[in-house]
Amino acid sequence: MAEDLTGLLSPGAVAVIGASPRPGSVGGEILRNLKGCGFDGDLYPVNPKYDTIDGLPSFPTIGDLPDGVDLAVLAINRDVVLDAVAEAGEKGISNLVIITAGFKESGEEGARREERLRRLIEEYKLNVVGPNCMGIINSSPAVRLNASFSRWFPHGGQIAFISQSGSLGETILECFADVGLGVSLFANLGNRAGLTENDFLAHLASDEGCRAIFLYLESFAEPREFRRLVERIAPRKPVVVLKAGRTKAGAAAVASHTGSLASPDAVVDAFLGQSGAIRVTTIEETITALRALERGVLPKGDRVVILTNAGGAGIIAADACERAGMEVPPLDDETKGLLSEFLPPEAGLGNPIDMIATAGAADYERSLKLAIGGVDAAIVIFRPPLVLPDPPLAVADGIARVASEVADKPVIVCTLSREVTPVVERIRTERVPVYAMPETAVDALAVLRRARRVREEREGGREIRVNPDPARRVIDAALGAGRSGLF
Amino acid sequence: MAEDLTGLLSPGAVAVIGASPRPGSVGGEILRNLKGCGFDGDLYPVNPKYDTIDGLPSFPTIGDLPDGVDLAVLAINRDVVLDAVAEAGEKGISNLVIITAGFKESGEEGARREERLRRLIEEYKLNVVGPNCMGIINSSPAVRLNASFSRWFPHGGQIAFISQSGSLGETILECFADVGLGVSLFANLGNRAGLTENDFLAHLASDEGCRAIFLYLESFAEPREFRRLVERIAPRKPVVVLKAGRTKAGAAAVASHTGSLASPDAVVDAFLGQSGAIRVTTIEETITALRALERGVLPKGDRVVILTNAGGAGIIAADACERAGMEVPPLDDETKGLLSEFLPPEAGLGNPIDMIATAGAADYERSLKLAIGGVDAAIVIFRPPLVLPDPPLAVADGIARVASEVADKPVIVCTLSREVTPVVERIRTERVPVYAMPETAVDALAVLRRARRVREEREGGREIRVNPDPARRVIDAALGAGRSGLF
Repeated sequence: MAEDLTGLLSPGAVAVIGASPRPGSVGGEILRNLKGCGFDGDLYPVNPKYDTIDGLPSFPTIGDLPDGVDLAVLAINRDVVLDAVAEAGEKGISNLVIITAGFKESGEEGARREERLRRLIEEYKLNVVGPNCMGIINSSPAVRLNASFSRWFPHGGQIAFISQSGSLGETILECFADVGLGVSLFANLGNRAGLTENDFLAHLASDEGCRAIFLYLESFAEPREFRRLVERIAPRKPVVVLKAGRTKAGAAAVASHTGSLASPDAVVDAFLGQSGAIRVTTIEETITALRALERGVLPKGDRVVILTNAGGAGIIAADACERAGMEVPPLDDETKGLLSEFLPPEAGLGNPIDMIATAGAADYERSLKLAIGGVDAAIVIFRPPLVLPDPPLAVADGIARVASEVADKPVIVCTLSREVTPVVERIRTERVPVYAMPETAVDALAVLRRARRVREEREGGREIRVNPDPARRVIDAALGAGRSGLF
Repeated sequence: MAEDLTGLLSPGAVAVIGASPRPGSVGGEILRNLKGCGFDGDLYPVNPKYDTIDGLPSFPTIGDLPDGVDLAVLAINRDVVLDAVAEAGEKGISNLVIITAGFKESGEEGARREERLRRLIEEYKLNVVGPNCMGIINSSPAVRLNASFSRWFPHGGQIAFISQSGSLGETILECFADVGLGVSLFANLGNRAGLTENDFLAHLASDEGCRAIFLYLESFAEPREFRRLVERIAPRKPVVVLKAGRTKAGAAAVASHTGSLASPDAVVDAFLGQSGAIRVTTIEETITALRALERGVLPKGDRVVILTNAGGAGIIAADACERAGMEVPPLDDETKGLLSEFLPPEAGLGNPIDMIATAGAADYERSLKLAIGGVDAAIVIFRPPLVLPDPPLAVADGIARVASEVADKPVIVCTLSREVTPVVERIRTERVPVYAMPETAVDALAVLRRARRVREEREGGREIRVNPDPARRVIDAALGAGRSGLF
């Protein structure tokens, strides 16, 4: 385990080994990302072919660099990359991001190369991200480091995102950008010859800039340590895991003895569930979950009120709530009476409360304030209709106002349309989660409910009522067989 | 059951009762939609307050209209709408779309109004869509009729979309527009005082412009008839159903006697499954399914090959295939040998075939052609990477070429990004389904597989091996209780 990731994640000076003025070259893209992201530390390109690159003086070798470089990003040929690692070690640069591919992912020669890299890491006590990775991003306003060739520099936020895969990391960062989800830290682990997800988890446990952690993993670098860390972190910060790799090829390697654990996926489920992680199974689900968790308001129970100006969508939301195990209880008579004082006679005073298409800003605000009193959370469906008594922004304002007043009850908004950007933006400014589809809004609420349960289970001092033995057997078998992953 | 919907769906002359020059008025929007959609029949606004509306001479009353009006769209006050219906009947206009709300959805007085409407429908033998609906759209190039106040006029296509809900219909039409899904016919049924989904199903059974049918329903107007129709249609044209309304309120009304049928949702599942419909549960799932079905190529079996230039996404797709009950079999040695002749040594020759980020147009085309030989379908993941040997469009061309050559095996593409519009467009021109996310691509394939099974079950003359008795009990109970819906 790495002791300290400060030099890696908040470096004062960064060198790019293999920087280049050529468009499309990876080292060149990284240098331009570092220059363009607002990083205000020192930047040193290293490439003997050039005197200057992008207006910065270029150094011929790592040995020629000034002292005090905290981080070196290596984007050079596989045949020379180990020499560069050793040079960096000699120079006292202890944090490296190795972009270069051609290690254990590419056959026997690559595996030998990775073994040599591991020895160098040990010899020089290096913090290494990679090899075969896309790099790291620290979006914290105080740092603003984009040491990657990602096309996306996510805006600052409170989600830390650790990805084993580069291309999927990029895809998911694009989704983050699409929905305005902010990131505090992005790291693509690549082959994990040095730092693993566990090192980042240990760092993030006490990182106050991070409110939730998302990991995309294909295997666990060290399952025991992973579980120990997640158990500790999850009750305070939700840990969302997208775990891929449940193919037959993977299953064949599992040494499991009971029928119910024959599928490695069931083992992963048990393992993650016991750790307190929230498992998601698709990328869309991931985005839905993180948008909800970003706000951090968890429901205290399972009772939901649904407010709508579109009947069909209310029914769909109610269906989805029941499917997810949440209650959509009838309103009490008092609330009904109060609502009937201002809603039109055509309004439906069940749950969903169908305020019909004529509902204006005051209807939304008053109804939501009244109805949320008796439940634990609200789903508010607001589709700006063809003819509306108030401007859509006024309605959005009212919803956001109530949401910010009831700080202990999640309010989740659904617009039924992707084309209502101003409404979405207004609601988002209060960090109220907003989705196009009613089912997705309910999925989001289900994730918040799961996060609350993790918190309760741990805070209450109760043991999780699952049988840890089968999972332990699998982990022990993996360790016994010298595997670095669980399967 | 209506005998003939030709006058309704392909009218020569349309009158808009309640047309208006006022922006934002529903009757005005409908007239402008009819004018703007390319409809080249005669248009007659009816409104005594104006001499002309939008450049068209306005008629003071329905009685003043010229003869030969095939369709009248009514967007007038609830208090005068029944008189207008009777006038239309007297005038011999037998097809009506009644937009006006304030019928059975709005209390006792509305219910009485709807009863009187039903009597007028019978008396004058009218084909009525609505009341309380958004209207109808016929996108067929020969007709181009937008008799609705929808903001979306979908481009011509081969999906017929019948929606009980107006607002959800609009939401789903927007999704259609987002993904370039074409529509042949859209009808919002509203309160179904006259025509129901069954009338449209009967019409669509022999409509050659329609390749697949999608219904959004909250209840069944006539379950026996629905099942008879879907049983007949589904083996030739997939019938996709999004059925909402499974709340406790609905469940309480179900007279079911066995535990497994305690949930009305299970009954709907059984009922739809027996009919041969493909049930979807979310709007996103609907769009995914229809995009796949639009092309109409169904797999003959469950074996899938996955081709990718991004390893992580390949694993996610393989996981999703296995979760959906499809096989991702290893390649045979011959195929492996042929692939190894041109793919780089770093490529993974398992299944998924990981061609790595350097894969170009020829790699995609040759690999897909080779690999699809041994399976029933292919998922092709192509994320245009930072540095690519060929222009992304060349790769898209190659994939589309193979997809059009293997006309009996579905090829589904996944781009891992929403920001690759030219690639998506190129692939779509060959009507190859293309999705951003790997899980969605697999969901799409699973729908095609389901459609194939419906076809096989019916074509093989085999009876469906389910027990129809419990479903019949529920239907009989509904009929016995005089309900118009199943629950």
